[in-house]
Amino acid sequence: MVTLGIIGAGRIGKVHTESICNYVRNARIKTVADPYMSEETRTWLLKMGVGGTCADYHEILNDPEIDAVLICSSTNTHSEISLEAIAAGKHVFCEKPIDHDLGRIKKVLTALEGSGLKYQVGFNRRHDHNFAAVKKAITDGKVGDVHIIKITSRDPEPPSAEYAAVSGGMFLDMTIHDFDMVRFLAGCEAEEIYTQAAVLVDPAIGEAGDVDTAVITMKMENGAIAVIDNSRRAAYGYDQRAEVFGSLGMAATANDTPSTVVLSNAEGVTGEKPLYFFLERYMQSFATEVRGFVDAIENDTDTAVGARDGLMPVLMGIAAKKSLDEHRPVKLSEIEF
Amino acid sequence: MVTLGIIGAGRIGKVHTESICNYVRNARIKTVADPYMSEETRTWLLKMGVGGTCADYHEILNDPEIDAVLICSSTNTHSEISLEAIAAGKHVFCEKPIDHDLGRIKKVLTALEGSGLKYQVGFNRRHDHNFAAVKKAITDGKVGDVHIIKITSRDPEPPSAEYAAVSGGMFLDMTIHDFDMVRFLAGCEAEEIYTQAAVLVDPAIGEAGDVDTAVITMKMENGAIAVIDNSRRAAYGYDQRAEVFGSLGMAATANDTPSTVVLSNAEGVTGEKPLYFFLERYMQSFATEVRGFVDAIENDTDTAVGARDGLMPVLMGIAAKKSLDEHRPVKLSEIEF
Amino acid sequence: MVTLGIIGAGRIGKVHTESICNYVRNARIKTVADPYMSEETRTWLLKMGVGGTCADYHEILNDPEIDAVLICSSTNTHSEISLEAIAAGKHVFCEKPIDHDLGRIKKVLTALEGSGLKYQVGFNRRHDHNFAAVKKAITDGKVGDVHIIKITSRDPEPPSAEYAAVSGGMFLDMTIHDFDMVRFLAGCEAEEIYTQAAVLVDPAIGEAGDVDTAVITMKMENGAIAVIDNSRRAAYGYDQRAEVFGSLGMAATANDTPSTVVLSNAEGVTGEKPLYFFLERYMQSFATEVRGFVDAIENDTDTAVGARDGLMPVLMGIAAKKSLDEHRPVKLSEIEF
Amino acid sequence: MVTLGIIGAGRIGKVHTESICNYVRNARIKTVADPYMSEETRTWLLKMGVGGTCADYHEILNDPEIDAVLICSSTNTHSEISLEAIAAGKHVFCEKPIDHDLGRIKKVLTALEGSGLKYQVGFNRRHDHNFAAVKKAITDGKVGDVHIIKITSRDPEPPSAEYAAVSGGMFLDMTIHDFDMVRFLAGCEAEEIYTQAAVLVDPAIGEAGDVDTAVITMKMENGAIAVIDNSRRAAYGYDQRAEVFGSLGMAATANDTPSTVVLSNAEGVTGEKPLYFFLERYMQSFATEVRGFVDAIENDTDTAVGARDGLMPVLMGIAAKKSLDEHRPVKLSEIEF
Repeated sequence: MVTLGIIGAGRIGKVHTESICNYVRNARIKTVADPYMSEETRTWLLKMGVGGTCADYHEILNDPEIDAVLICSSTNTHSEISLEAIAAGKHVFCEKPIDHDLGRIKKVLTALEGSGLKYQVGFNRRHDHNFAAVKKAITDGKVGDVHIIKITSRDPEPPSAEYAAVSGGMFLDMTIHDFDMVRFLAGCEAEEIYTQAAVLVDPAIGEAGDVDTAVITMKMENGAIAVIDNSRRAAYGYDQRAEVFGSLGMAATANDTPSTVVLSNAEGVTGEKPLYFFLERYMQSFATEVRGFVDAIENDTDTAVGARDGLMPVLMGIAAKKSLDEHRPVKLSEIEF
Repeated sequence: MVTLGIIGAGRIGKVHTESICNYVRNARIKTVADPYMSEETRTWLLKMGVGGTCADYHEILNDPEIDAVLICSSTNTHSEISLEAIAAGKHVFCEKPIDHDLGRIKKVLTALEGSGLKYQVGFNRRHDHNFAAVKKAITDGKVGDVHIIKITSRDPEPPSAEYAAVSGGMFLDMTIHDFDMVRFLAGCEAEEIYTQAAVLVDPAIGEAGDVDTAVITMKMENGAIAVIDNSRRAAYGYDQRAEVFGSLGMAATANDTPSTVVLSNAEGVTGEKPLYFFLERYMQSFATEVRGFVDAIENDTDTAVGARDGLMPVLMGIAAKKSLDEHRPVKLSEIEF
Repeated sequence: MVTLGIIGAGRIGKVHTESICNYVRNARIKTVADPYMSEETRTWLLKMGVGGTCADYHEILNDPEIDAVLICSSTNTHSEISLEAIAAGKHVFCEKPIDHDLGRIKKVLTALEGSGLKYQVGFNRRHDHNFAAVKKAITDGKVGDVHIIKITSRDPEPPSAEYAAVSGGMFLDMTIHDFDMVRFLAGCEAEEIYTQAAVLVDPAIGEAGDVDTAVITMKMENGAIAVIDNSRRAAYGYDQRAEVFGSLGMAATANDTPSTVVLSNAEGVTGEKPLYFFLERYMQSFATEVRGFVDAIENDTDTAVGARDGLMPVLMGIAAKKSLDEHRPVKLSEIEF
Repeated sequence: MVTLGIIGAGRIGKVHTESICNYVRNARIKTVADPYMSEETRTWLLKMGVGGTCADYHEILNDPEIDAVLICSSTNTHSEISLEAIAAGKHVFCEKPIDHDLGRIKKVLTALEGSGLKYQVGFNRRHDHNFAAVKKAITDGKVGDVHIIKITSRDPEPPSAEYAAVSGGMFLDMTIHDFDMVRFLAGCEAEEIYTQAAVLVDPAIGEAGDVDTAVITMKMENGAIAVIDNSRRAAYGYDQRAEVFGSLGMAATANDTPSTVVLSNAEGVTGEKPLYFFLERYMQSFATEVRGFVDAIENDTDTAVGARDGLMPVLMGIAAKKSLDEHRPVKLSEIEF
């Protein structure tokens, strides 16, 4: 039985709390820390069976009963709390991204070296049933040598321009998941990235210095070509697909829907839209990833998504932005860290 | 908060226990009764947070703290325990069927009259996301007047001939769910039933006096025609579909699959088989139905599937068997009870 | 090169004329006969390269250059012209049905005996790419032993009540194609038929003594169970599907559509409706069946759909009607002829 | 009635001959010219109703009865014969590409100016039912403003390295169709192109100086981003899809298959592979495009795909190659002609 502390009781902190209480039999949450915890949240936690709450996450770090922490606080605190947690001898599950600054991520990697601690980054989509099945098709040899990887990733609604301004930009905020997916499916790193991007959804996003639509091409180390297409707004909802084409065939996913019902009438033959957004679409993956984290601690095995997996997509996002700014293909080796 | 006792710790008893612990926030399980409870089950229950166990279910019935019971024991005990539970003033969730004997079911209905107690029968498929979406399409008026209802229901593996012999026959053991679905989707009762059936899967089932393949046609009170096709063995797994055709169009479901991944290669374009069997396919519905039962108790509303809904599919199963035996269409009004 | 005469220049006569001119390289149409041929039709025929026209089909029967005739006249003349054509030593392609009267069909069968002439009935759906592919899956052994055959056959619009009154009834006018399909897919005859039918589309059809909605169950000689569902009006258009379920799996068709385009928007994910009606849906099959007929003449082989194949679906239609009238399952052996 | 001459009796010349004879009622082929015409071809032409043949296409150009020519000869002769035909006052349907040399294409454009002659280039895919339906969805406003265009175009088998060496390279030989499709769907020109390409299918193609796998990104004049992915070999056959994403939704095509039959068995749920190659997949479009050409002559309207539509995809192919060679995005305005 692994004892956990959760740092941050916002949306994703609650998602993990619920998953762990419902599905992770070999873990218990002892304490949830949040400086702004509402009474409502406290009541909800009690109902979930979590009695321990505190404002200051250092209480968790100083609690010798707690084996591991989940860092679910705001992005700009991830790397610092990671370092503190590692120093306190806690295993760490850190929500993505570790940081937008490569130097700070590097500090986390350095701190982990020889620590014997587990570190997992919350790239949950690897644990999604559809993407995991594509990966399995590849590793089972059904696709052959991978030639082309295509990721479609479109949100149902754009963020506010205010959020866009502090999000680190679309590449680090949204595409980062797709960069991770490309690495996961290719089984290797990207060598070079070229970005074609535009502001087509919301001019305010452009005024905030960001883009909302992009097609990003990558040359992978194994020779494969990868391409991501992103939009901040799909009228039909959350569009999350992958297609991997290789020497023996193609493995492709479709979106998940609330039901399989199809209505045929005078207007056409109509199925349901995709599940609305990430909480609906990826709920299963949040449970699966944390279960894997706890199992890695119990069995002393590698985590599925380690600190280096947290670093590389940030590097890719920075290269993608540089490509856009300099209007040329950019090699990952150009990005210093 | 509703306090529950569960009678029977077999497969379906455990399914309900797990669903309630994970998903039903306004209920707690105080006690699980089973005369043959293993140490392993007891440990598992503890891990789920259920400390109370007993061999004799009368302990549950006599416990004034317990508001409601779930009857998950063997089929031949359902009606008797129902009667005892009602006499003890407990609300009852009873797994299907209430009984194979219409007289005994009638006693349950009589006992409920004026009792003020809730009674729900475990026809879980009504709560499945796909079938519920078909029903919603109908009630939303998208199908218009219902003309034809088609249910396909095929199991991945036949039961043993020994089981077939004591199961009450395919119509009461397997088709009973489909009879309930026909009533649910039609929104009315069947008037007449005609059965065409055969032994095509396993001769031993025939030797045990049962059939394993059937097409059953029904005339519904509202004029619609319904047809169920059953097989005890589909090579591709659990096939669970419905199609409702009406004056304005058709609503149809497809099977659920483990993932949406499609592999295109030299052999063809191949998707996954349906989810294997009822535990995989209908897990969500087991949670939804019990949540509904608990809500009905808390809010003093009707249960979604009442005792009469438990009676009618048994009546239909008996009529279907009579049609097969007498080789003619049989009216439900011919069946005495 | 086979020289053809076409008797009847109505809709189906024109379909065959066009198919033969465009696709059947080893046949030429010498003459088209129609007592009511319009100037427009004559011009159209000329443009297709057919110069010979006449009012009286006996000119065709008496023309020693003509090897074979296509009987595309009104249904009530099919058997008589068949007999005359056989007497004149012509091979015959006869539109379905040969006749509604079993005695007259029998006369055609008798006349053919020992004549050495080819006779083909226009059950075109056997030649359709989808239904032919289902048949191939069966004969290739991919379905295993056939257990259940399901045919869905729904028209986009009901006929006028006037037409219904003289059509021979839905079973001989519409279901006759589905009866043929059941025989084709089962590879054997039906033993017994039970009909559940109703008037749900248009009361005027009921007043004309016919039905417009039906579910017809058949026991086949090989033990399989077949079921046809019919409606005279599907709001979404022409619904033409088959599903064959057997010991090794299931082969199922979907409808053909004008394009594969799917539109995803705020309303849902919408594909096209089926091709509108039989001329759009089955155009390819009309060419294929006549090409087969001409090849059978050239190569002196059996036609794909012989005179007995013309007889049996009529027998089935009569049995289906008798089942409806007498409200009981009817054996085909009960129908005298 | 338009009188046609066909120059070149190879594969595509025969495809057009057959289409015209079968489907284009307001045209007749008077003469087919080919210096290497076999006796077999001559016989086949006679059977199709085409009596006139000659070795030297100038006979066609000098024939005052002939209104228009179809240039179906080898690619390196297209522009020269176009110029001669225009000089002879003939309307021209020219197979793609007009030329690989921009200067020669320009000469054709100049020759056409003020000639009053119709000129159509054989970009047949615009006339395909699926791609035309996507275009219609766009022009009907169902997609809204176009943001992302994705074209997947993969051949079932790579060409020989010998062919690759003389083909003008993959971009002018294969992608040229996709460049045309991007222009067609975007409704505007590309501004800039970036190519990521590799040799992953056949090293011999690389040795011949060509590539066999590519992802090509384009910035369009209207701000949309387009991306083409190409492979010279898809194990599952000819993969021809388009997806257009815009402010109101997405229109996407799937591949056409020989039938809709799906086989469900112990291995999975398997549909058919795409139609094998362009002759199977696009046969309908070859007839439709020529019918449109003849109609444009008869009605004196613009052709659907004019000479400028023949020029631009060649320009795009040259820019794509330059991008690959110089490893940077290339503006179309950089290409001189």
